[in-house]
Amino acid sequence: MDFTEQTSAKAVADSFANTPDPRLRQVLTSLAEHLHAFVRDVRPSMPEWEAAIGFLTATGQMCSDTRQEFILLSDVLGVSMLVETLNDRHEQAATDSTVLGPFHVVASSARELGDSIDEVGGGQPCVVTGRVVSVDGTPLPGATVDVWQADAEGYYDVQCPDTVPEGNLRGLFTTDDEGGFHFRTVMPRHYPIPTDGPVGKLLARSGRHPYRPPHIHFIAEAAGHHPVTTHVFVAGGEYLDSDAVFAVKQALVREFEEVHDPQQADRHGVTAPFRHARFDIVLAPA
Amino acid sequence: MDFTEQTSAKAVADSFANTPDPRLRQVLTSLAEHLHAFVRDVRPSMPEWEAAIGFLTATGQMCSDTRQEFILLSDVLGVSMLVETLNDRHEQAATDSTVLGPFHVVASSARELGDSIDEVGGGQPCVVTGRVVSVDGTPLPGATVDVWQADAEGYYDVQCPDTVPEGNLRGLFTTDDEGGFHFRTVMPRHYPIPTDGPVGKLLARSGRHPYRPPHIHFIAEAAGHHPVTTHVFVAGGEYLDSDAVFAVKQALVREFEEVHDPQQADRHGVTAPFRHARFDIVLAPA
Repeated sequence: MDFTEQTSAKAVADSFANTPDPRLRQVLTSLAEHLHAFVRDVRPSMPEWEAAIGFLTATGQMCSDTRQEFILLSDVLGVSMLVETLNDRHEQAATDSTVLGPFHVVASSARELGDSIDEVGGGQPCVVTGRVVSVDGTPLPGATVDVWQADAEGYYDVQCPDTVPEGNLRGLFTTDDEGGFHFRTVMPRHYPIPTDGPVGKLLARSGRHPYRPPHIHFIAEAAGHHPVTTHVFVAGGEYLDSDAVFAVKQALVREFEEVHDPQQADRHGVTAPFRHARFDIVLAPA
Repeated sequence: MDFTEQTSAKAVADSFANTPDPRLRQVLTSLAEHLHAFVRDVRPSMPEWEAAIGFLTATGQMCSDTRQEFILLSDVLGVSMLVETLNDRHEQAATDSTVLGPFHVVASSARELGDSIDEVGGGQPCVVTGRVVSVDGTPLPGATVDVWQADAEGYYDVQCPDTVPEGNLRGLFTTDDEGGFHFRTVMPRHYPIPTDGPVGKLLARSGRHPYRPPHIHFIAEAAGHHPVTTHVFVAGGEYLDSDAVFAVKQALVREFEEVHDPQQADRHGVTAPFRHARFDIVLAPA
C-alpha cells in the first residue's frame, strides 16, 4: 500500500513495531503519530521544510561544552518546564519544584550559616532566611541547601570567567538543629537567556522577549525525604508574568522586604537598608 | 496562573500570539500544541529528556557540507515523504512524485539519446526507454529528463570520489520529436542510507534495516507543464516493501525484463542478456 497523508503515521509507527526495548518502542510510536499530525496540520511547503531542517541543524551546531542550544529551545517551547512538572510528584503540602536551568555547572562551596555568597560586592544587600521541614512540620536538621543566582547585572559567575571568581553567588549550606538556614547575598536581577543563537533569533522573530524574572535557585536535600529543585522569585520583579522559560509558580514568589532597622542589619552583618526574604522549604518523606 | 500539565500547551501557544508573520505564528502555535501533546503522552523521565536533548545535539553535530543528518532523520521518520506527498498536487493521470533524496548534488551532464550514463562498467547492462507526454497523451518533444542512480555496488558517484568520476551514472537527456528518450546504464542495486551517525544508531536500536530498494531517480521538465521529481523502482527488488525512507509508490514500480535477443541488444548497443525497462512520464499542464 502506498504512503499517503492518511496512512503515513501508521506506516512509520509500524516500522518501529519490532523495537526490542518496549519503552523506546512506545516513545517512537507516539513520536510518529504526533509528528505526522503536526506536519499534516501545518502542511509545510518544501522551502518551509528546508528552513526547519536548517534551524535544527544550526541549533545543534551552536552547542558546545559551555552552551546547550537544544536545552534553550526546550526551555522557550515550555518543554523543559512541562517535563519538570510531569516528574514532580510531590505531596500537595511540599514545596513546588521548578526547572534546574543551565547554570548549575559548578559545585557550590560549603559555607557557614550566615556567610555571604557574594565574593565581589556591588549589589543591593540581601538576607535570606528559612527552615527546611518535613510535610508534618518536623524540622530537618542537617539538610543541605544548595543556592546559586545571577548578580546585580544579571550574570552568573560562569558567564564572566575573566572578572568574577568561580563559585561567586553559590553556596552549600547545612541546616542547624531547628532546620534553619540563613545567608547573605545581593539582590538577583532579571536577565536574558543567551540570544546570539538560533533560539534567540526565533524569539526575536516571534516578538518574544528573552528575559527571566529575578530569582534565586535552590536544591534542598534531607535524609529520608525527596529532594526538591526550585527557585524563589522576587515579588514585583520584572517579567514575573512572562518568564521566557515558563518556570514561575505563584507559590514560589516571596516578598523581599526592604528593612531600614540598623539593629536588624547589624544582626545579619549587613548595612541598612537591606532586603530580607523568608523561604521555608517543605520536603515530602521518601 | 501556574504552568500545569493541562495549561502548558496554551501558555506556550499564547507566548507566540504576537508573532508578526501570520504563517510563522500559525506554525509555532501548532508546534506548541503537538509537541506538548507528545510530551504529555510519553511522560519522559528527566534522564529520557536528557537523552532526547543529547540525540538532537549529536544529530546537528553530525551535519557537514556533505552530510545532512537531520534530513536523514526526517527521511526515516517518514516526514520527508509526507511533506513531498502534501506538496504533490498533481492530476490523477500524471506520474506520481517521490522524494528527491540527498544525492542530487552534482549537475548531470547533457548526454545524447542512447548514450550510456555508465562511465565505469561492471554492472549488468540495462536499457531504459520511455516517452514524456502530457496528461491528454500529447508527446512533449524537447522535455528534459534528468536521471541519476546508484551503481551495481549500491554507491553514488559522490560517495566514491577517489575511484569513480564525478557525473558517473548521471545524465541529462532531451526528448525527441515524439517525446521519446532512451539511455543505457547498469542495474541499480539496493543500498543502505548512511548508518555511522545518530540516525543509524536509532535504526539499529529499533530493529529497522537501513536499506532502500533498487531505483533510478528522475526529474522531468517540459514547457507549460509542472515538473515531476520521482523514481522508477525495480519490480522484485529487495526491500521494495520496507524502504527505509518510505518513498515507494506502487505506480512507480516497473519490470526490468531480461532480454536475450542479440538483435535487440545490437539495436541498443549492449550485449545480451540485458535488462530493459519502459518508463513513460506523464506531466500535468501548468
